[in-house]
Amino acid sequence: MARIDLNCDMGESHGAFVIGHDADVLPHVTSVNVACGFHGGDPGVMRTTVILAAMHRVAVGAHPGLPDLLGFGRRDMAVTPQEVYDMVTYQIGALEAIASAAAGIPLQHVKPHGALYNMAAVRDDLADAIARAVHDVDDSLILMGLAGSALLRAGHAHGLATASEVFADRAYMPDGTLAPRSRPDALITNVDIAVARAVRMVTLHEVIAVDGTAVTLDAETICLHGDAPQAALFAQRIRAGLDAAGITVQALGTRPHSG
Amino acid sequence: MARIDLNCDMGESHGAFVIGHDADVLPHVTSVNVACGFHGGDPGVMRTTVILAAMHRVAVGAHPGLPDLLGFGRRDMAVTPQEVYDMVTYQIGALEAIASAAAGIPLQHVKPHGALYNMAAVRDDLADAIARAVHDVDDSLILMGLAGSALLRAGHAHGLATASEVFADRAYMPDGTLAPRSRPDALITNVDIAVARAVRMVTLHEVIAVDGTAVTLDAETICLHGDAPQAALFAQRIRAGLDAAGITVQALGTRPHSG
Amino acid sequence: MARIDLNCDMGESHGAFVIGHDADVLPHVTSVNVACGFHGGDPGVMRTTVILAAMHRVAVGAHPGLPDLLGFGRRDMAVTPQEVYDMVTYQIGALEAIASAAAGIPLQHVKPHGALYNMAAVRDDLADAIARAVHDVDDSLILMGLAGSALLRAGHAHGLATASEVFADRAYMPDGTLAPRSRPDALITNVDIAVARAVRMVTLHEVIAVDGTAVTLDAETICLHGDAPQAALFAQRIRAGLDAAGITVQALGTRPHSG
Amino acid sequence: MARIDLNCDMGESHGAFVIGHDADVLPHVTSVNVACGFHGGDPGVMRTTVILAAMHRVAVGAHPGLPDLLGFGRRDMAVTPQEVYDMVTYQIGALEAIASAAAGIPLQHVKPHGALYNMAAVRDDLADAIARAVHDVDDSLILMGLAGSALLRAGHAHGLATASEVFADRAYMPDGTLAPRSRPDALITNVDIAVARAVRMVTLHEVIAVDGTAVTLDAETICLHGDAPQAALFAQRIRAGLDAAGITVQALGTRPHSG
Repeated sequence: MARIDLNCDMGESHGAFVIGHDADVLPHVTSVNVACGFHGGDPGVMRTTVILAAMHRVAVGAHPGLPDLLGFGRRDMAVTPQEVYDMVTYQIGALEAIASAAAGIPLQHVKPHGALYNMAAVRDDLADAIARAVHDVDDSLILMGLAGSALLRAGHAHGLATASEVFADRAYMPDGTLAPRSRPDALITNVDIAVARAVRMVTLHEVIAVDGTAVTLDAETICLHGDAPQAALFAQRIRAGLDAAGITVQALGTRPHSG
Repeated sequence: MARIDLNCDMGESHGAFVIGHDADVLPHVTSVNVACGFHGGDPGVMRTTVILAAMHRVAVGAHPGLPDLLGFGRRDMAVTPQEVYDMVTYQIGALEAIASAAAGIPLQHVKPHGALYNMAAVRDDLADAIARAVHDVDDSLILMGLAGSALLRAGHAHGLATASEVFADRAYMPDGTLAPRSRPDALITNVDIAVARAVRMVTLHEVIAVDGTAVTLDAETICLHGDAPQAALFAQRIRAGLDAAGITVQALGTRPHSG
Repeated sequence: MARIDLNCDMGESHGAFVIGHDADVLPHVTSVNVACGFHGGDPGVMRTTVILAAMHRVAVGAHPGLPDLLGFGRRDMAVTPQEVYDMVTYQIGALEAIASAAAGIPLQHVKPHGALYNMAAVRDDLADAIARAVHDVDDSLILMGLAGSALLRAGHAHGLATASEVFADRAYMPDGTLAPRSRPDALITNVDIAVARAVRMVTLHEVIAVDGTAVTLDAETICLHGDAPQAALFAQRIRAGLDAAGITVQALGTRPHSG
Repeated sequence: MARIDLNCDMGESHGAFVIGHDADVLPHVTSVNVACGFHGGDPGVMRTTVILAAMHRVAVGAHPGLPDLLGFGRRDMAVTPQEVYDMVTYQIGALEAIASAAAGIPLQHVKPHGALYNMAAVRDDLADAIARAVHDVDDSLILMGLAGSALLRAGHAHGLATASEVFADRAYMPDGTLAPRSRPDALITNVDIAVARAVRMVTLHEVIAVDGTAVTLDAETICLHGDAPQAALFAQRIRAGLDAAGITVQALGTRPHSG
């Protein structure tokens, strides 16, 4: 029987500066990636986010990013593997303490954010730095990364459980990478199509690329975007579509993993 | 037989910006308070500092500060107890992860920095917030604070082990508080006098105040300043003076504590 | 014939982090106070805000704040007069360059933000530091401050033109200070009452305090809050109410000033 | 008769965090590049630096950097031309206000820092953004950049006066670019050799590259590094060597410029 995790980035607000629709999206997902103060988030937002997640029995992961609040962690920076190791270790530790102290819950996973996620998808040295950091902080944490990415390979190399992530609302290239946002068809805004793609990825392990070919991919978790205006609607509809297809939607930590 | 811990603030450099003479002072102390990125320090400096401390078998504690890098955490800010709880939890967790991942060592203690230390010495609400944070993250951590302070009382109230801190190079008022830095006699720059005061505080549990009266105080750890030009000399001489007086100089974690 | 300026804080978003409803409120006001990157704003937001203001022919002023993005500049900090002089000079200069380079417009005024505004209302040393900074950067700038405040007195002492600010949606104490936000009646949420108060302050130079007594005050500019959900409605209604009362609503720079 | 400007980066300390030996180097140079708070510096350090420069009758320029204090502005970031335009405008304006208000002096020039300097040496889009910002803030400012760089070309295109910068203590490649720091011979640490190279560059407009060939370059200003331990000695010796060779050492603003 098919299973899938639904994850969403959360807790990215910073002080009085609000990002996202966390409370509306959270009831529909099974895992949340909580910002750790570098690209977004702050100690207080982290606390309220993990408490909210615990109330909804949603699993919590760390969402470490580059030290670039102004750029929301989305600008590539020439960081070294050592700098990445240090910043990831720091951010996981900060969230782990808050989750434990304020909500009494452990972390389930780690998923890097933005430019760090993208760089770690293709650069082996940075992927290795992230996987080592996760391993050294807590080797029971699941490393979440783009399906087919260097990050997942690095996680396997360090003996970590991993979760292969797919996107229901992004177009794919024939080689399995995401279509660049510069393409007009990069984003899938029709929710029915997104639901159908999500079900196909989970049940058939494939997605139809922009050229019409079927691409095989491993779908262990689906990323939902939490900051779009229609984020809650999208989340609800995809969740409902997966349920209707007989797919079990549950957090990663509650089933065996690859790796 | 008398015992004492010698502590010093360390790891307060930030990227290319250097503060302190860490490598020179470290061999003479038994505990170091490591900055956690808010008033000073950064993930890389934290890693190199805990590794250096581990090599010297010196105990490591967290030194959380206010989010004011420009002011080096020395400017009072109107922070709420909830904000203090969150920022202390965050910073302890970040250091705990780095100490564990990079050096394989646990934390021994927590000592707030600068304005946070001073506010927590007199304000019960902020002292309680810090003690709760320490307790909730790891109740085996020792809470270090000014002798006679609200912070130590809060630590006791939350069942924490505490360490009562005294200063060998600061003048005291008759009521046991530190002489304000605005007084010309606030700082003791003569190292022989500082050594004699250190020995007296440890063995006789008293210090001679600015008016000549003897003030009773509880000395479990002596703070050495690491950023003065003569920091290493001071550290070496005080350590030698305590040794010569037959006092056992050792980290807090290796003996029973109050609280 | 009665005249008044309507001002609103703007440009407080920071990168991807949004605050306020700038585009909706701007058409109704005559002056905007633009954040300068310390408590909010960033170089890009400053540019788009001054361009938007120039398109609407609304006067632009600098809105310097404390270096506390996380606290949105609303937390008192123990800053020295020298630090205040420096941070205000820096922020005015940054905005002046952007307004000149990107929109070809000069600055009209300076109004400190949040905790800096409140501290400068009652502390002569900080008020003097702000007035000196404004004077030294450009002595044709108008200094905006709370009616009856130390800041306005300091502006007069340094020979600056000043603008006495009142609030249509805040309750007043019998001594002319704002009712603290802890009081249940501190905020006036009924827009009809706010309009009536605004008209009375401009035409009769008085406001009815919380105890029913009439308090005399000098109203040269009315502050509208731009971040409340009903901000645009409030702005539109107060503007309309002033117009209906035959009051000329125009920017400060277009008429003679006190001072 | 040959002329040259000697420039040095200054004012890069941040609060309690010290970088550089400003007071020791300043007497030997004719222009200083003052950090503007993004990669280093802060409003107070900017003020004390411009006052010190004014006392020594040394010309002052803005030294804008990337918003990366932790990385000291030395890490490439994927910033857009618009972001660069905005951050450079902001930083020049901030320093211009401080120099005018606190020291009564105008700015002479602008020289980007670190990764921004290096990216602008080779990327036309970022070079254009910097030149436009300088032009739009104050078109009498001189744009300083690496000899032969895209930045100087962009300055010319926008009608700015420019200053072509060379390095006495860096090795050059046959194509006129700086030898990468990864080469063992990248830095010239022998002060006599550095002096000889400086004189040759000014009088013969050439430098001997790593392969022994002579490379032609335009030397209008020589950069001295202010943060090396022997910075003051180097500065003094190079200044003396230029004087002994009959070269007039003076600031850029006191002579005609290219462009």
